[in-house]
Amino acid sequence: MIENLKKVQHIKTGKNMTCGQLIDQMNKSGVMGAGKIAKAADIMETMIRDKECKVFLGLAGAMVPGGQKQIIIDMLKDGWIDVFVTTGANLTHDLIEALGYNHYQGTHMINDDELNKKGIDRIYDAFMPNEVYEGLEKFCKKAFEKMPKEEMNIKEFLWLLGKEVPDENSILRICAEKKIPIFCPALSDSGIGLQVWSYMQEHKIKVSAFDDLKEIIDIVWTSDRNGVIYIGGGVPKNYVQQALQFSETAASYAVQITTDRPESGGSSGAELREGISWGKLDKKARYTNVTCDATIALPLISAALKERLEKEST
Amino acid sequence: MIENLKKVQHIKTGKNMTCGQLIDQMNKSGVMGAGKIAKAADIMETMIRDKECKVFLGLAGAMVPGGQKQIIIDMLKDGWIDVFVTTGANLTHDLIEALGYNHYQGTHMINDDELNKKGIDRIYDAFMPNEVYEGLEKFCKKAFEKMPKEEMNIKEFLWLLGKEVPDENSILRICAEKKIPIFCPALSDSGIGLQVWSYMQEHKIKVSAFDDLKEIIDIVWTSDRNGVIYIGGGVPKNYVQQALQFSETAASYAVQITTDRPESGGSSGAELREGISWGKLDKKARYTNVTCDATIALPLISAALKERLEKEST
Amino acid sequence: MIENLKKVQHIKTGKNMTCGQLIDQMNKSGVMGAGKIAKAADIMETMIRDKECKVFLGLAGAMVPGGQKQIIIDMLKDGWIDVFVTTGANLTHDLIEALGYNHYQGTHMINDDELNKKGIDRIYDAFMPNEVYEGLEKFCKKAFEKMPKEEMNIKEFLWLLGKEVPDENSILRICAEKKIPIFCPALSDSGIGLQVWSYMQEHKIKVSAFDDLKEIIDIVWTSDRNGVIYIGGGVPKNYVQQALQFSETAASYAVQITTDRPESGGSSGAELREGISWGKLDKKARYTNVTCDATIALPLISAALKERLEKEST
Amino acid sequence: MIENLKKVQHIKTGKNMTCGQLIDQMNKSGVMGAGKIAKAADIMETMIRDKECKVFLGLAGAMVPGGQKQIIIDMLKDGWIDVFVTTGANLTHDLIEALGYNHYQGTHMINDDELNKKGIDRIYDAFMPNEVYEGLEKFCKKAFEKMPKEEMNIKEFLWLLGKEVPDENSILRICAEKKIPIFCPALSDSGIGLQVWSYMQEHKIKVSAFDDLKEIIDIVWTSDRNGVIYIGGGVPKNYVQQALQFSETAASYAVQITTDRPESGGSSGAELREGISWGKLDKKARYTNVTCDATIALPLISAALKERLEKEST
Repeated sequence: MIENLKKVQHIKTGKNMTCGQLIDQMNKSGVMGAGKIAKAADIMETMIRDKECKVFLGLAGAMVPGGQKQIIIDMLKDGWIDVFVTTGANLTHDLIEALGYNHYQGTHMINDDELNKKGIDRIYDAFMPNEVYEGLEKFCKKAFEKMPKEEMNIKEFLWLLGKEVPDENSILRICAEKKIPIFCPALSDSGIGLQVWSYMQEHKIKVSAFDDLKEIIDIVWTSDRNGVIYIGGGVPKNYVQQALQFSETAASYAVQITTDRPESGGSSGAELREGISWGKLDKKARYTNVTCDATIALPLISAALKERLEKEST
Repeated sequence: MIENLKKVQHIKTGKNMTCGQLIDQMNKSGVMGAGKIAKAADIMETMIRDKECKVFLGLAGAMVPGGQKQIIIDMLKDGWIDVFVTTGANLTHDLIEALGYNHYQGTHMINDDELNKKGIDRIYDAFMPNEVYEGLEKFCKKAFEKMPKEEMNIKEFLWLLGKEVPDENSILRICAEKKIPIFCPALSDSGIGLQVWSYMQEHKIKVSAFDDLKEIIDIVWTSDRNGVIYIGGGVPKNYVQQALQFSETAASYAVQITTDRPESGGSSGAELREGISWGKLDKKARYTNVTCDATIALPLISAALKERLEKEST
Repeated sequence: MIENLKKVQHIKTGKNMTCGQLIDQMNKSGVMGAGKIAKAADIMETMIRDKECKVFLGLAGAMVPGGQKQIIIDMLKDGWIDVFVTTGANLTHDLIEALGYNHYQGTHMINDDELNKKGIDRIYDAFMPNEVYEGLEKFCKKAFEKMPKEEMNIKEFLWLLGKEVPDENSILRICAEKKIPIFCPALSDSGIGLQVWSYMQEHKIKVSAFDDLKEIIDIVWTSDRNGVIYIGGGVPKNYVQQALQFSETAASYAVQITTDRPESGGSSGAELREGISWGKLDKKARYTNVTCDATIALPLISAALKERLEKEST
Repeated sequence: MIENLKKVQHIKTGKNMTCGQLIDQMNKSGVMGAGKIAKAADIMETMIRDKECKVFLGLAGAMVPGGQKQIIIDMLKDGWIDVFVTTGANLTHDLIEALGYNHYQGTHMINDDELNKKGIDRIYDAFMPNEVYEGLEKFCKKAFEKMPKEEMNIKEFLWLLGKEVPDENSILRICAEKKIPIFCPALSDSGIGLQVWSYMQEHKIKVSAFDDLKEIIDIVWTSDRNGVIYIGGGVPKNYVQQALQFSETAASYAVQITTDRPESGGSSGAELREGISWGKLDKKARYTNVTCDATIALPLISAALKERLEKEST
């Protein structure tokens, strides 16, 4: 039996090795975390190349403060992602940067009361000036005024908002421009959500939280194949999983990158395999659970995939 | 300096020791996980006893499939909790059980495809028959028909739904009966949410996802003191944190129980201390981060608190 | 199929509930972390009651600074443990306390350089005065002088050392008095180990690190059944696992309590099940992996087991 | 204050990007896991370039079954490492491969009893044929016969063993050939250790476990500066930390890569900062704790460092 298995070939690194070459080496070792990174790259490559596959990206965690914005933007721009599901926080931080603010390289070993006095908000070791909320309010008010008075779902609202974003290099703006469906079921749980509510107190604006369900379920139902990439779990993962559960096209490809654990039973840390029982994941699906900080795993995989996917294009 | 510190007194267990006595021993040891469990019990006791403190419970994770429903119900019934924020999943699983279904003791070492063929959905090592969704649909349709045609916020919707729940021993029903504000910003990301959407296709029902923000912020603003208990992070935690951020009454007491980690920057695993920079947590607040599976930590603390809090009542 | 499974009965806590009663409730819920705690208590009870079973305790991690010394002592005193394997660090901290020093309740949020200036060593949130090393040296020198000049194995050395310990309530002393085999393969990696080496520079003392292997393998070979309790992984776990591998009596019972993870392949976090492939664990063995901080799980289980095991004795 | 901080510049990946370029990008983002990987690469580069700095590598975990052997060999060969401390398991798996055996790419989702029947030992998702132990025994016997009858310390023993290793591309052989001090305090807790003990039953061979202490402490004392790289914690980390504690030259540079956590107080997961209190780490030291599966982090850093360090050499 063991003779039929591939040997663990030891990873050989070299000078000027590309990220793609490194992942090829990880593929040859094939075990533990490195093996999973390589498998994730393979599965993502396959689902992106598969023209009949809709690729869903469920993105949670502090990915914008964590320096991953450009990678997400590139994934959206390069056509890797067909449907984008994320948290209100990521969209808010993206918008804040598009308005000219920045996140800063801080430290978690600090007196938080001193930060508070200086008007600095901490996200682990990333700092953000609290004044961003003024800019956010000003921008939102103006943008909301241009919006129609009829009821929108969250996707439509975000597309309209995205069009007003002054910076071309923004997640929101790209989704709006490229008409990439963007779902954010817990938008009310974010800075943008607060602005919506605040504006609603005096103006007419109607955003429905339930109407997006139809759209995402429709996409799942009508596609030939589905592929999912979950980063950080949370509502974005669960929302895609739910759409898969209530359609007849279970996912054929799945990659999960998170440090959450399965034992306590929560959706964020649940192994992808569990989805087979629910009909969310096809029993023949290719999938892998990468247990890794996404700020490490995602850039590495992104670079390798650019290498692989752009090879033909030139 | 070291002379002024308390010694680590070793935990002494004994026959017929109560959970309260065990936590007293953990208090005397005072370090590592045991010390934090003891500190969490102390802080929770203080916030519950403090008549001028509003206690917020943010509950995420598979707490109903995980056997924690009764503990949550008791916390709500006994008046420990003033405001309840949770996921759609927990409310859905609670409702499912109230309709007469059960979760079962399974295993995670199983062929998920076989489970799928047998109509069993897996949540780590808990199993649930897939047929629950039929009962859920039937119940929801009937309950929704009785609802007003005017726009409700999610809290109002859940209270109305709770009144229809046939089992007295249900989280939803208790909140409805005791008029405990219940917030669920990502309700659309759940079985109940799907029923709302499905019903909306042919009937008139309006549930606003943004209007709850006013209520939770009002509660935070008007209370003299706020205390928070976060189990499992996710949207429930973030939603309370957001309300604290945009009020002037930062939390005076805070307890967090999760196995999520701070390093990747996400809200779920963020240390409570971080909230001080944002103005979510008072710089003089008493707080502790318990890194533990909540299905272990919560029952132990619950039992100890019943012992402490009911002492006087008799 | 699902009808044959036990229902998840929700944990009901009550006033003055004993730890044993709480674990009975966890047994009825039967899933996630709580279910594993209950299963661990059951398996430990069974292996302790089984007169023909040798119980091995492999103990790593900062259990003495972490306030768990008395629980270990009670396990040894009450006859629960037949063979004890641990790290040099735990024995050194035990000895330090037996010499009259203490560990203190500190904090991990502190300037470590200030601690250093004050002569305080930090172990997460436990503090220890650095002066303990003077007392340790003085005691060891005296104790070593009484030792035979012939070669001893580590177990014999530790028994001789244990006899000199001035405090009756010490792990080392109990093992010596009760003739409980105590193995510490990496003794040289500890304060006591350093004292051995230091003494060796000028005096004759011979401690063999390999000779203990015969003893532990003999114990495994000659017992009818073996049960293992691993806390914290490390060398203590691996050393017992190795003895099981090279005997013909694989373990019939196994409990592991650790927060280490399996994915990176290390022995500490490896699931017990893996041991079946190696012949370390019997394929019919009862076993469970508790993913929990041992300073929380062990006291709870200890209290419950005292309740169960002492019931009959009175 | 915030103006003086560096901005989080978003990681930009590109086609044919080298691993070094990726880490440069991570350096510009500077936060969360990616920031720590970049910092680790910088610190390791500095300590390797610093001619007056002795670099200690403490290596635990299943690094050979995990496909990392070549990376370790290159680190030793290229002169990056002055002192090597590891587990008996890593040396045993290295030796096993040098004898012509292999590890294989398996899976952790398997029936371990079936593996056992097929003579396959599982290390998470790596498989090893159990027959390796026959080859190991044969080789060891022969090698031990050539050894002197006088007492050796473990380092001397391993150097002698390394000379007999038939494969040039072996950790043991390289250390022997390059006279890199190799410490393995818990050697008895391994396959090689078992062979030593087994051979001792009928032949004369003397290996002292305490005598190595003098050597490692001497190295620490006599070097101008010390740098440490800890992978996976365990005895290898603790042994170097101990040598640093009892010398006057605390480490000036420190990098730790592990998924172990600090909260339960064990040495493996302890933050490096803690070492400042003990005098193991200099208060002005540069250090970082990378929370990541080493099979992912190490190859990436290795490739980047080859790029940086070999730039000048050509």
